[in-house]
Amino acid sequence: MPTYRAELTEVGAGTPMGELLRRYWHPVGLAADAGERARKVRVLGEDLILFRDGQGRAGLVYPRCAHRGTSLYYGKVEERGIRCCYHGWLYDVQGHCLEQPCDEGGGPRRDKVRQPWYAVEERYGLVFAYLGPPRKKPLLPRYGCLEELGPGEFIEADDSSLGSGGAQVVPCNWLQHWENVVDPFHVPILHGSFSGAQFVAQMAQMPKVEFSATERGVKVLSLRTLADGRVFRRVTEAVMPTLRVVPNPRIGSYGKVESIGWVLPIDDTHYRIYVSGRVSEQGQLGNMRSKMNGKSWSELTEEEHQRFPGDYEAQTGQGPITLHSEEHFAASDKGIALLRRFLEQQLKKVAAGGDPAGVAFDEESAYVQFEAGNFLADSVAAL
Amino acid sequence: MPTYRAELTEVGAGTPMGELLRRYWHPVGLAADAGERARKVRVLGEDLILFRDGQGRAGLVYPRCAHRGTSLYYGKVEERGIRCCYHGWLYDVQGHCLEQPCDEGGGPRRDKVRQPWYAVEERYGLVFAYLGPPRKKPLLPRYGCLEELGPGEFIEADDSSLGSGGAQVVPCNWLQHWENVVDPFHVPILHGSFSGAQFVAQMAQMPKVEFSATERGVKVLSLRTLADGRVFRRVTEAVMPTLRVVPNPRIGSYGKVESIGWVLPIDDTHYRIYVSGRVSEQGQLGNMRSKMNGKSWSELTEEEHQRFPGDYEAQTGQGPITLHSEEHFAASDKGIALLRRFLEQQLKKVAAGGDPAGVAFDEESAYVQFEAGNFLADSVAAL
Amino acid sequence: MPTYRAELTEVGAGTPMGELLRRYWHPVGLAADAGERARKVRVLGEDLILFRDGQGRAGLVYPRCAHRGTSLYYGKVEERGIRCCYHGWLYDVQGHCLEQPCDEGGGPRRDKVRQPWYAVEERYGLVFAYLGPPRKKPLLPRYGCLEELGPGEFIEADDSSLGSGGAQVVPCNWLQHWENVVDPFHVPILHGSFSGAQFVAQMAQMPKVEFSATERGVKVLSLRTLADGRVFRRVTEAVMPTLRVVPNPRIGSYGKVESIGWVLPIDDTHYRIYVSGRVSEQGQLGNMRSKMNGKSWSELTEEEHQRFPGDYEAQTGQGPITLHSEEHFAASDKGIALLRRFLEQQLKKVAAGGDPAGVAFDEESAYVQFEAGNFLADSVAAL
Repeated sequence: MPTYRAELTEVGAGTPMGELLRRYWHPVGLAADAGERARKVRVLGEDLILFRDGQGRAGLVYPRCAHRGTSLYYGKVEERGIRCCYHGWLYDVQGHCLEQPCDEGGGPRRDKVRQPWYAVEERYGLVFAYLGPPRKKPLLPRYGCLEELGPGEFIEADDSSLGSGGAQVVPCNWLQHWENVVDPFHVPILHGSFSGAQFVAQMAQMPKVEFSATERGVKVLSLRTLADGRVFRRVTEAVMPTLRVVPNPRIGSYGKVESIGWVLPIDDTHYRIYVSGRVSEQGQLGNMRSKMNGKSWSELTEEEHQRFPGDYEAQTGQGPITLHSEEHFAASDKGIALLRRFLEQQLKKVAAGGDPAGVAFDEESAYVQFEAGNFLADSVAAL
Repeated sequence: MPTYRAELTEVGAGTPMGELLRRYWHPVGLAADAGERARKVRVLGEDLILFRDGQGRAGLVYPRCAHRGTSLYYGKVEERGIRCCYHGWLYDVQGHCLEQPCDEGGGPRRDKVRQPWYAVEERYGLVFAYLGPPRKKPLLPRYGCLEELGPGEFIEADDSSLGSGGAQVVPCNWLQHWENVVDPFHVPILHGSFSGAQFVAQMAQMPKVEFSATERGVKVLSLRTLADGRVFRRVTEAVMPTLRVVPNPRIGSYGKVESIGWVLPIDDTHYRIYVSGRVSEQGQLGNMRSKMNGKSWSELTEEEHQRFPGDYEAQTGQGPITLHSEEHFAASDKGIALLRRFLEQQLKKVAAGGDPAGVAFDEESAYVQFEAGNFLADSVAAL
Repeated sequence: MPTYRAELTEVGAGTPMGELLRRYWHPVGLAADAGERARKVRVLGEDLILFRDGQGRAGLVYPRCAHRGTSLYYGKVEERGIRCCYHGWLYDVQGHCLEQPCDEGGGPRRDKVRQPWYAVEERYGLVFAYLGPPRKKPLLPRYGCLEELGPGEFIEADDSSLGSGGAQVVPCNWLQHWENVVDPFHVPILHGSFSGAQFVAQMAQMPKVEFSATERGVKVLSLRTLADGRVFRRVTEAVMPTLRVVPNPRIGSYGKVESIGWVLPIDDTHYRIYVSGRVSEQGQLGNMRSKMNGKSWSELTEEEHQRFPGDYEAQTGQGPITLHSEEHFAASDKGIALLRRFLEQQLKKVAAGGDPAGVAFDEESAYVQFEAGNFLADSVAAL
């Protein structure tokens, strides 16, 4: 019977990968998504409610009111928290029950009740949440590529799943996309030959590649000798927990990576991508989105999806969760193999009670510099 | 693992609550729903076909023809019964097979076949069915509030689920709605504050409440002292098996309850409400339907459902079947607790071979007077 | 608990009926369906990809690329086969891997990989596939009624499920339809009385019927004495594996059967019909399609489906898979009983390691003459 590797793919609470991913912060929305209208979000298989109280504090709570289970999606956001529509119980962003208005004196036993909640922090235009054990909560990392801005640069965030090649919510397992980050050989085929040259011409050339594990994930170095003898050196990284650190494949300019994508597992069979990046114009991130046959993905006919496939088609085409037992690896799949081994190591660390890669508890360790970027050298010797 | 109380909520044949509810009559349609066109109905988890033969007799049968299983939904209703479209077997309203036209002499063994059927009776503009053990079939009750009409009054029936706060078919367990009948404290919150004053102003005031079990269910007495010193006394009843005996929350006039709602469990996760009431004008029942933000429920946008929630949102917001293990009761939930205890007692009676509350086999016992109504007294002392 | 006979109805690989049916060829598309655009087909519960390479060879392969599982639905059809969009592996129509372009020299180990594939052959305007054990593969049969053409006649194929009475894909088990072929008594009821006379007047008369098992299935002989004393003799056959050999019920002219329908089990709860027939005009097959109330099936309202039911309503009305435990057979069901017994015998033969009825390995045995047709005799004595 064909099977998939549940320990690498499933993200629910209590599963091995679910518990590993819960040791990190994940984006759950744009900063603007946390507002005075309750919003449903789904993260790692959990349905939650995101809001922002009148004091500006973002909150992320379990949707079922602790009283009688009505969804806080219908709750009213107030100065001090969110109030259930049914009997008016009021909770703050940390789940404390502040009022039970149907009972004498606002509820003599309201202190005994705590609405389940998760910690949130905001950075880079995104709201991040930590769904793991409270005592293991690490610092929310800072990334050099988003901290060190050039003149006129600022940070922009995008929630349209840039890099998925298609829809905002992609109906397949997150790992199918994340593995794609360490798979440089598909680029000349899928993006260079099948769909016409989706990216710039030099990306359509088959590269020489070196794969390596780093302290935070897997690094891919692709080398291409250009027609004029210069050498195009491209470094891509997959970083724990789900970061895609991928330099612009359109290569407007050379230098360090411009943006980070967080591949958010919505549940076992859906993911989406949040991106933050350095830009010098509003909307610059969104302009990175690919066109196929001159159209955006959502405008393609069924036949055009077949004739101009991209990452969305390739990865959803592997099924909701790909069947690992049916795979046949070749030498060119070394990046995927490395990434899976890296994940297995992190699973072991957590099972043994340790901290997985990249989890940091002091500001210095929580500041991360990537190697990723597009670089140009005069010759191989000059590298 | 969060769980729900199956014995209180599930209604299928063979389940404890399913068998308890099957000791009573339930409405399965308006009188006009039984006609010469076969109609699908779903009741207590059973799919059935309702029709009326040429002699005016309503019939309720199992949909699969006893011959080869084709649905009688495609049958032809005739003078003597319903005829299957496939091979023409004809059944009367009690499931007797009257003809097998593909066989010699109309089927020499047709007497050996009986299409499964249920007893039906009509009253108050509704067709009621009894799905329980034939030997336990009680009388179809009469209710004083629908029998004793004032001058110019007549009985009107409605199948739009008046009182659900939303759609005709509501996608949650019936008990979530029925419990709402004995929950007077939600009124000032959900209907008085959240959605603006859905009802009249005096309903938005938090009442003093007395709950009590009766011989037929649970009674709620809500007292409110009005600005002029008079006392508004409101009595609501939840009556076996699923009756909502709720006086008009718009309080056009004081006096005994005007209508009865039967909360029909369609299956474990859907219900609908049939109502019969005394009216003096055609369409008067339908005019009781609430408006939210000046619109009917089906016209609301998703955002308006959030900003102007009503019973539909509060109760479907508890999920398809609420998770009882996750509830935290307060003193104000006493009515719910009483109702569940009342149901537990009825389950025990049936398990012990007895008759549950309100099941009557003589005309006198089958005639029921409610206490429910909106009443006005000059002062508390005058009550 | 009501049950169905899984061994007669379920068609998946490894099930008794699934393995029996896999000993025969089945149509999987019109010849034109195999083209340079990959096409999804579903047969006997298996999802497959149909295409035709640049050399004109039709191919039928497992959809998941043997490399990393991306669907070949997004593949590019080339001169030598189909190429996966993700990493460009190229397979020929027999699943040989011809290229792995991301690896040195086109993949040094590409010979070790075989994409799962099935044998196909084309005839009568259809592509037939054999999904069984390769060593048991029989010849694709020839049928006299499609080989021996009259002057001006040619073969036309149709994929619209002629004879289903409704949609192209019918949401019920294939056997519900196939049994209908040996059920002549439903014709005067369903097609002669219920829906008006769908066919010609003489078909609405209740026939005298003789059922018999043949070496290839079940034969039904229906005799009707016409008003002028002549005798209308109609022979219908159900032939292994799923052939409906049904003379035109509109009886344009007398003589041998004009067409064959293959009832293709898409999976356990869906089927479709492919038809090939002798015609003298383009589109003649399609004109056989019934009208109900003057409309085509897809134009009918819900009420018209009830008032003018046909085979589609009768057979889908039995449910996704009918519940055999609930049936009550009469003498007129003898054809169904014979057909089920015939199938049981074939299941036994296969279980015992033998070949089922109609499987042929030499050209002579693989040439089949049917008895089916509409015939007219001057009198009973002249038969």
